[in-house]
Amino acid sequence: MTRWEPGAAKRLQEAALELFATRGFEQTTATEIAQSVGLTERTFFRHFSDKREVLFHGQHLLAQAFLVGVETAPPDASPIEIVASALRSVTSFFPDERRHHSRSRQSVIDQNPALQERERHKLASLAAAVAGALHARGVDELAATLAAESGVTVFRIAFAQWLREDEQRSLADLTAEVLRELLSLTRDRA
Amino acid sequence: MTRWEPGAAKRLQEAALELFATRGFEQTTATEIAQSVGLTERTFFRHFSDKREVLFHGQHLLAQAFLVGVETAPPDASPIEIVASALRSVTSFFPDERRHHSRSRQSVIDQNPALQERERHKLASLAAAVAGALHARGVDELAATLAAESGVTVFRIAFAQWLREDEQRSLADLTAEVLRELLSLTRDRA
Repeated sequence: MTRWEPGAAKRLQEAALELFATRGFEQTTATEIAQSVGLTERTFFRHFSDKREVLFHGQHLLAQAFLVGVETAPPDASPIEIVASALRSVTSFFPDERRHHSRSRQSVIDQNPALQERERHKLASLAAAVAGALHARGVDELAATLAAESGVTVFRIAFAQWLREDEQRSLADLTAEVLRELLSLTRDRA
Repeated sequence: MTRWEPGAAKRLQEAALELFATRGFEQTTATEIAQSVGLTERTFFRHFSDKREVLFHGQHLLAQAFLVGVETAPPDASPIEIVASALRSVTSFFPDERRHHSRSRQSVIDQNPALQERERHKLASLAAAVAGALHARGVDELAATLAAESGVTVFRIAFAQWLREDEQRSLADLTAEVLRELLSLTRDRA
């Protein structure tokens, strides 16, 4: 019978980040991650398909938060207002308590091209999913694609800023600021 | 002494696309590409570091076209006007005569996740280079990043449309249309 390990996923994630940071991602095995918190390799693989998954676990929740924000925008919202709603929904997913964890995760990713690729791929899929949801709301295809891509770009830039060493502002504030800048930028045309 | 092969790179590229399309990218070797046009493997490797490079050869010219467009925009141009200038510069790089070749290339890439990743990576690097050039012109960092990302997104969407089977419009027209749509989208806010 499989034993239930309360909080095992979270413990494995924290241990993995610690080991990735000190030894390097490539040099760390799933078994070592599990053993470092007194769990078995089997428990590890009950939660994650491989060590890379430890870093991308929860990505479907991010996508879900985006999509909930799209769906809960008022019926008469413009595409950009829908995207703004999606961004608000997503930022509530990253309270300041998560900043430290997110920074550790990012520094592991920044050191590994294959992980960076995984991240890019994930964001590309996210933009496609958001475009699909906008289109399902009746936004025409081109506007849906542009609005979704813009929304994901705003998120990506604000998120990178949020992770900077000396940054104190919340992700919600940063996202709102980057979106405002995008809107002002595209209005600033002769 | 190395023999000069006039037009070898172009012949190798065309032969490679043909073989990638009929046999599959994975199943085609550099030697086979060279032999199919009566050239040696050595000639192949004088032009390309590997078979993947055949598909991404000329990418630096695309980046260069973007940067030339940034640099030649009038001194008082707004960030979005600079991006519009960059897009005009880039589209002159893809006349309609190139559409068939670009379609063949894209269908090879669409069938191979590693090539798709290379493409994403290339576009991410392109956006970073354009942001750097905008920043060098005095645009502040956030605006430069947003404008560059938006420009590359517009290019990517217009380019995908240009490659569609039944599309007749030029890349220049499509790019201008997608940019207009982006501008109207971000103005459409309550």
